[in-house]
Amino acid sequence: MTVSLTLALDAMGGDHGPSVVVPAAIRYAQANPDCALILVGQESAVRACLPDGRLPPRVSIHHASEVVGMDEAPASALRGKKDSSMRVAINLVKDGAADACVSAGNTGALMATARFVLKTIPGVDRPAIITALPAVDGRTWVLDLGANIDSTAEHLLQFAVMGTELVNAVEGKAAPAVGLLNIGEEEIKGVDSVKQAHVLLQNSGLNYQGYVEGDDIYLREGLDIVVADGFIGNISLKSSEGVAKMIKHFLTVEFKRNLLTRLAALAAMPVLKRLTKRIDPRRYNGASLLGLRGIVVKSHGGADQFAFETAIGIARKEVEADIAARITDSVAAQLQQKASA
Amino acid sequence: MTVSLTLALDAMGGDHGPSVVVPAAIRYAQANPDCALILVGQESAVRACLPDGRLPPRVSIHHASEVVGMDEAPASALRGKKDSSMRVAINLVKDGAADACVSAGNTGALMATARFVLKTIPGVDRPAIITALPAVDGRTWVLDLGANIDSTAEHLLQFAVMGTELVNAVEGKAAPAVGLLNIGEEEIKGVDSVKQAHVLLQNSGLNYQGYVEGDDIYLREGLDIVVADGFIGNISLKSSEGVAKMIKHFLTVEFKRNLLTRLAALAAMPVLKRLTKRIDPRRYNGASLLGLRGIVVKSHGGADQFAFETAIGIARKEVEADIAARITDSVAAQLQQKASA
Repeated sequence: MTVSLTLALDAMGGDHGPSVVVPAAIRYAQANPDCALILVGQESAVRACLPDGRLPPRVSIHHASEVVGMDEAPASALRGKKDSSMRVAINLVKDGAADACVSAGNTGALMATARFVLKTIPGVDRPAIITALPAVDGRTWVLDLGANIDSTAEHLLQFAVMGTELVNAVEGKAAPAVGLLNIGEEEIKGVDSVKQAHVLLQNSGLNYQGYVEGDDIYLREGLDIVVADGFIGNISLKSSEGVAKMIKHFLTVEFKRNLLTRLAALAAMPVLKRLTKRIDPRRYNGASLLGLRGIVVKSHGGADQFAFETAIGIARKEVEADIAARITDSVAAQLQQKASA
Repeated sequence: MTVSLTLALDAMGGDHGPSVVVPAAIRYAQANPDCALILVGQESAVRACLPDGRLPPRVSIHHASEVVGMDEAPASALRGKKDSSMRVAINLVKDGAADACVSAGNTGALMATARFVLKTIPGVDRPAIITALPAVDGRTWVLDLGANIDSTAEHLLQFAVMGTELVNAVEGKAAPAVGLLNIGEEEIKGVDSVKQAHVLLQNSGLNYQGYVEGDDIYLREGLDIVVADGFIGNISLKSSEGVAKMIKHFLTVEFKRNLLTRLAALAAMPVLKRLTKRIDPRRYNGASLLGLRGIVVKSHGGADQFAFETAIGIARKEVEADIAARITDSVAAQLQQKASA
């Protein structure tokens, strides 16, 4: 089988660096014989994580001497670390040596670097971050998750356009249903930018369903995409993660209470495993940076091997769907529609 | 025992109206012999919910001919329904006939009416809505939950001052720990109002802990109060509710999967009950409208009898703590500190 796509992996990113990225790459390459993977990072550190120190087929190393810290300021990473594994992995995408890049490095630095190196698609003011979240009827994609604050109505419209293309590409839905995140109090409904975006979306030609509330992300059937400013989206996401972790904590505490509850836990184990699988963040790992002239996927910093493989899979789907080109066309069409309106 | 406090209940508010409020009032009155309750609403509808049509001791009816709809616009309720159960219940607080009022009616109308009738405390620009949420180490109070959008730094400071007084009063904590809701991306941390509020809070004399993220509401130990703009707070709350409901839904589905899982559910029942109790929204029912010259507690619209009693209990605690006077003093002190700075 010939190699049909090449992915650059930031081997040093994330809380675990090469100890997670290298085995994930090896397993992914084994399972995907049409895929080549470039491990970008400090060669010695990467080699140390290879079984027998040997590179398997279609996995290569591209040395990069520096590492961006998980708490490092984006500006410092951007200006001070031109040979970081993150920067070099993105450079490979820009140069055409890789079709996409995956990094578990810090989000701010990744976005700033990707934006600087790859540039935005014409007509896109601000790239956005999108991820899928579990929902009662499958999953819901939410953007922006923190790349932008104080988004204007135009930005929110662009997020909706980009999200529609991504979900169309990744899930094969022709016209995914889009909702705009708002609050339910009639009197004060919506900040101005949200109200204006509501009008823009109604006239956008997208499958726009109107305002949605925070709980709709997880509960409303048929909803595919929720659009929000990054400040709002990030707080919604983090609040959600907090509740899920709290419930897990309480379940654990209660099941460990005494011998009887420990026995109950054994009986309930298959159910709890299925529940965990349904909402396992590792199955939803991989947030996409949309609106760039290239494909960049952000893995959770704490991702384990399985989760990192999920993120690689997302990058692959985006390459296959040629997502950057699609967004380019879709944004151009929106601009044209606006000009002729 | 003599009656030490009187509470006005909007008997017509909420999804269930008098069928929930009347039995809740009767039970609360029985359990609290120092407490008198006034059922405000359409006399015939209220009487129809009385056992044997008879009023128990310390429970009375105050007739009000109109009812505010759960979806009615606040302006319509305020201008068009001067004899609504909601309005009359608040009037009783203003006139001193009741020490506080509890309503499960629509939040926007309740806030608008309470603000119009009772007025705000001197120095408070905007009343806020606060409620307690479950947390791994007890509970965390969050405000504002939707009364205000586009809050300025000064508003956020006022929320922190009011929240501190409430938690001090209700939980007896001398200096509850306050966090300011923000996002974690360094480069773009915070909208301007949040950044400015951060500085104000650092100089406020409150027990300010700095920025917190959405998950800290549920996970961070020792955190008592989280301050946010109402748009943000509402979306955080609704997102959290959505996740909890989704997890409950998945648990139910998985436990009902087959005979084996149904047996496991039986074994796990005590544990699941304890879990439910820990995060039962009914135990957290009762959001307080803070910053008014009077005490108004909002019950969830869908509250059952137990939940409505919880809300009555919150109103009682606020009366006993003289919360409006405390907030008046505390806001005045803040203003003085600012003037002398």
